[in-house]
Amino acid sequence: MAVPETKEFLLKVIDILLDFIRATNDRNEKVLDFHHPEDMKKLLQLEIPDNPVTLQQLLADCAITLKYQVKTGHPHFFNQLSCGLDIISMAGEWLTATANTNMFTYEIAPVFILMENVVLTKMREIIGWNCGDSILAPGGSISNLYAFLAARHKMFPGYKEHGSRALPGDLVMFTSDQSHYSVKSCAAVCGLGTDNCVMVPSDEHGRMITTELERMVLERKAKGQIPFFVSATAGTTVLGAFDPLNEIADICDKYNLWLHVDAAWGGGLLLSRKYRHPRLSGIERSLSVTWNPHKLMGALLQCSTIHFKEDGLLMSCNQMSAEYLFMTDKLYDLQYDTGDKVIQCGRHNDIFKLWLQWRAKGTEGFADHMDRLMDLAQYQVKKIKQNPDKFYLIMEPECVNVSFWYIPKRLRGGTEGFADHMDRLMDLAQYQVKKIKQNPDKFYLIMEPECICPIIKARMMQTGSMMVGYQPDDRRPNFFRSIISSAAVTEKDVDFMLEEFDRLGHDL
Amino acid sequence: MAVPETKEFLLKVIDILLDFIRATNDRNEKVLDFHHPEDMKKLLQLEIPDNPVTLQQLLADCAITLKYQVKTGHPHFFNQLSCGLDIISMAGEWLTATANTNMFTYEIAPVFILMENVVLTKMREIIGWNCGDSILAPGGSISNLYAFLAARHKMFPGYKEHGSRALPGDLVMFTSDQSHYSVKSCAAVCGLGTDNCVMVPSDEHGRMITTELERMVLERKAKGQIPFFVSATAGTTVLGAFDPLNEIADICDKYNLWLHVDAAWGGGLLLSRKYRHPRLSGIERSLSVTWNPHKLMGALLQCSTIHFKEDGLLMSCNQMSAEYLFMTDKLYDLQYDTGDKVIQCGRHNDIFKLWLQWRAKGTEGFADHMDRLMDLAQYQVKKIKQNPDKFYLIMEPECVNVSFWYIPKRLRGGTEGFADHMDRLMDLAQYQVKKIKQNPDKFYLIMEPECICPIIKARMMQTGSMMVGYQPDDRRPNFFRSIISSAAVTEKDVDFMLEEFDRLGHDL
Repeated sequence: MAVPETKEFLLKVIDILLDFIRATNDRNEKVLDFHHPEDMKKLLQLEIPDNPVTLQQLLADCAITLKYQVKTGHPHFFNQLSCGLDIISMAGEWLTATANTNMFTYEIAPVFILMENVVLTKMREIIGWNCGDSILAPGGSISNLYAFLAARHKMFPGYKEHGSRALPGDLVMFTSDQSHYSVKSCAAVCGLGTDNCVMVPSDEHGRMITTELERMVLERKAKGQIPFFVSATAGTTVLGAFDPLNEIADICDKYNLWLHVDAAWGGGLLLSRKYRHPRLSGIERSLSVTWNPHKLMGALLQCSTIHFKEDGLLMSCNQMSAEYLFMTDKLYDLQYDTGDKVIQCGRHNDIFKLWLQWRAKGTEGFADHMDRLMDLAQYQVKKIKQNPDKFYLIMEPECVNVSFWYIPKRLRGGTEGFADHMDRLMDLAQYQVKKIKQNPDKFYLIMEPECICPIIKARMMQTGSMMVGYQPDDRRPNFFRSIISSAAVTEKDVDFMLEEFDRLGHDL
Repeated sequence: MAVPETKEFLLKVIDILLDFIRATNDRNEKVLDFHHPEDMKKLLQLEIPDNPVTLQQLLADCAITLKYQVKTGHPHFFNQLSCGLDIISMAGEWLTATANTNMFTYEIAPVFILMENVVLTKMREIIGWNCGDSILAPGGSISNLYAFLAARHKMFPGYKEHGSRALPGDLVMFTSDQSHYSVKSCAAVCGLGTDNCVMVPSDEHGRMITTELERMVLERKAKGQIPFFVSATAGTTVLGAFDPLNEIADICDKYNLWLHVDAAWGGGLLLSRKYRHPRLSGIERSLSVTWNPHKLMGALLQCSTIHFKEDGLLMSCNQMSAEYLFMTDKLYDLQYDTGDKVIQCGRHNDIFKLWLQWRAKGTEGFADHMDRLMDLAQYQVKKIKQNPDKFYLIMEPECVNVSFWYIPKRLRGGTEGFADHMDRLMDLAQYQVKKIKQNPDKFYLIMEPECICPIIKARMMQTGSMMVGYQPDDRRPNFFRSIISSAAVTEKDVDFMLEEFDRLGHDL
């Protein structure tokens, strides 16, 4: 494509993107235009042709793709931990695409490698360390994997070469039953087996019960196994709970366990003056921290970081001495080459969008932004409490996750109402609703509580008015969990969300 | 940021990007403006401020970032397996950034999930399968990890829960000594230990010696170990060699081993009518294939795929049954949700840029493009052979990697010349040059051959005229390896490359 033609084509693409951005920020636009997969296929022309399509057709392809894409940046999208569309971060990602470089060496990514150094050093300082090493990874799950691998390597250096044969017993890791499933996945991926990922019970707020942690460590030790790794969670996926880090750190000190903090979600609150403590107190005592700027901080997907208190560990753990790729006789200081520190070899440039966004906000601006999101979640909590006939707040949230049931008209009020019913279910935490159903002689199930959520969700998707997620947990049948992590959300959007529940579900 | 201000800012960013694209395509522009890290830090303003910088400053930040970034799309950039800047794929990545969605469910990425289905099905058909399952992963190394995990799970389903305790002996995997280091890394990550990743010797073309493979399998079996996995390479990183897939498949059949083909690099030639056979003959007999469209096919970074002949395996291997994330009571057909198939949980959208690019080229266009790149590499080989005084071709390439030594003036011609010297080194394949130096009584080393490459490389980076990589291997001291994987390269650029070597290095 010649340069003027290139420019014309690209500017037309930009027009389409600007139109999508406008629609994303327009509260009168739908969040999504839902169609079932088989219908959607008919609306799109997805097939790969043998011969080229025209530039005109490619522009039409772009437009229709965005027409049917969910607007994750819309102020009424409360569905995922990553909501919003930060324009500066997006501009950064456009530049990243155009620069199209890999991140393995200073040789081919000099500016971006230096940016990584600056930003990751800053993040370690915010954690509370003036030392260490860090890397960007493709998502929080891989970041947690990095932590697991570094811990195993540090504590059992022979494992890298000899595997489990290097050890006198099975390695065991610990995490709470509310932790992200990627922690358990490490046990499967890395050869421990999920049997050796111990799920420590959590309290009613979703926080790890530390007396249970200690009991379970001792139990495994008594079996001749080798406890070595604890993954505490700072901001659980569903409830937004923060494990008590100082108490866990004490146990890790006592039994010589590696303390990792999965702050993929809650890490953003490290920037907050108002909400950092007590939630994240003690994080500086950990040896590794996962922190995803693409979540609370609103950097574009993906932007995930993993930090280590000890420098040199990433390299000694992961390097395979691929001299053919990472030569040692180059003209510049090789400490800037990162290729040998990582398990992916090639790495996407995930730093520029975050660096540019951080320049645009400043650290103070990020602090204000975190406080604003939390204040909005508190506003939502207040509104829910003011409407006890329509909503049942499951717990006071520690993060921007707000968990609640919506109560349809016919279940409101009185002692036989929905709230009492849910209270009873919560008392029966150890039983799932299916157990209730298995005992129809003992329990009278007023309605199928799981049904409300999927029906309301289906209705909101079909009308396209908003998106809020729901899920069950070990103690409760399906409940809604809204997330406020988009800078676009205002009090009015929170009001809209709650009113929309009533419009969609009052008749159920 | 209000909408008109947003638009104005973004259009100014686009101006900066268009200027970079223009410079990237201008042969009179330098490929890079090199500065050592400490100097570069002074040229840039990298620090993160407490308070916001202005939009004007952000634009300046973007401009200076690109000023000092290496132009990986420049026609004189022959340095990495991923070269070039495909404008359509780039436009796709801009749209991807603006859509900013995660890929775990149809719910939030309906169009992109369907695109993945279409493109990955097409790729499996091209491999030679009319069945199976595939996923996009963050890079070839993670794709290889997926293959390893699926193989282990299929052959030893108890491993996921019970780890190595489920087996009567150690698992052993095999790959050639030319394979990508990520294969060996699987053994470290997954708990086998690198001891149990057997590096099978390769022949003088860099292809796995299959008699050695069989011998080593038997050797390990005799020790009571459990060989289970062979990773063959279709396109090695340095030499571009293709392992003999049919011979390896025969051995895998005979000993019940999982055959994985790492075609991250060479996979693009599956699209070529002219070059697919015999290089990739037999790939259809494998059980898994890694294939990176961000390499030969020129899709933007990152775009890596992993394919399995058996459907259902990704799910049973990787799912952790995170009901709280991947609900089973949704309103649409859940077979489209991918979150539970992957180890990353959240996934970047890597499909749109490839889908759009494939629409733009058509499958026929891709085939022509592959042939064109190979023909250009053959043109380079011809030119090298026509100048035996200046260049020494290390071997006839099977891919677009061309490996050669450049011969400075003082070493040209005569029986004491550089070529004879290098021939002798090649005869001494099992010895490194350092061994020659350790025996000064027996060998006369005319010059330090390793020195030529780093000096020329330093000069090309300092002048910024081009980028070509070099590395040693087990048989040879440092040699240059150029890559032609950019659609921008022409015969004249190949001529330029070879002439530039002479300008940069004739006096050495």
